[in-house]
Amino acid sequence: MHPIGAHLVLVAAALTALPAAAQFAKKDDAVQYRESAMFLMNTHFGRVAAMANGRVPFDAVAAASNAQLVAQLAKLPWPAFAEGFDGGKAKDEIWKEQAKFKDLGAKMEAETAKLAEVAAGGQLEAIKAQVGRVGASCKACHDDFRKR
Amino acid sequence: MHPIGAHLVLVAAALTALPAAAQFAKKDDAVQYRESAMFLMNTHFGRVAAMANGRVPFDAVAAASNAQLVAQLAKLPWPAFAEGFDGGKAKDEIWKEQAKFKDLGAKMEAETAKLAEVAAGGQLEAIKAQVGRVGASCKACHDDFRKR
Repeated sequence: MHPIGAHLVLVAAALTALPAAAQFAKKDDAVQYRESAMFLMNTHFGRVAAMANGRVPFDAVAAASNAQLVAQLAKLPWPAFAEGFDGGKAKDEIWKEQAKFKDLGAKMEAETAKLAEVAAGGQLEAIKAQVGRVGASCKACHDDFRKR
Repeated sequence: MHPIGAHLVLVAAALTALPAAAQFAKKDDAVQYRESAMFLMNTHFGRVAAMANGRVPFDAVAAASNAQLVAQLAKLPWPAFAEGFDGGKAKDEIWKEQAKFKDLGAKMEAETAKLAEVAAGGQLEAIKAQVGRVGASCKACHDDFRKR
């Protein structure tokens, strides 16, 4: 594993060492936390996607940096979806269909990690393909679990 | 420099390679972006501070991971404070006193980078001292530039 990748895994494990529900004093904090993480993720993914879609000139260093940040941010929201933290844009189905939600979340996290790897390689065609997979993994979860 | 630190500097430079105002399509996006980054920063800094203040048992790995994330998040908000992006909790003084605002922002960024370094060392007394300096650097800027 790439050393930065290994570091991120360690960070994510340590950040979630507390029981998830113990990490937020108030439900509103958990809602704002996950929506903040998603907003930042969307912003930085959007910058890679804009290059992949040709709306912005390709800059390999910027693509790699933004993709790296997306992969790190993708690790954050999960403890904020603990039992009892319903609200905001989250549909109640999240807590009724936990196995499915966790599976889709893990899929998104894996696809963003792959995007960081691919973007580090600097090949636009490969980045385009992986941007498509990340976007599909966002949509798959939002379709079922995010309010419109 | 620690390899992770070096990487973060590179990431921050690359993320801000575009002119700041070009990074957000709408003013509201810039406001939500910086407030999201600040909220995440506050959450993760709060976890280190809780250990420093003895409200939560000291866990060296969790302290180091949270501090590392705070230092990375501290690099993000600045392009979202570009000219024309007033609003949210930002006082108009930010755009009237740019030199002071930038100086206080850079101070906070430097103190959080130092916290990540200190926390990596795992010594609670040193972490306590640096948590105090980071907190003071947050407050110094908020006192003048954040709406109550």
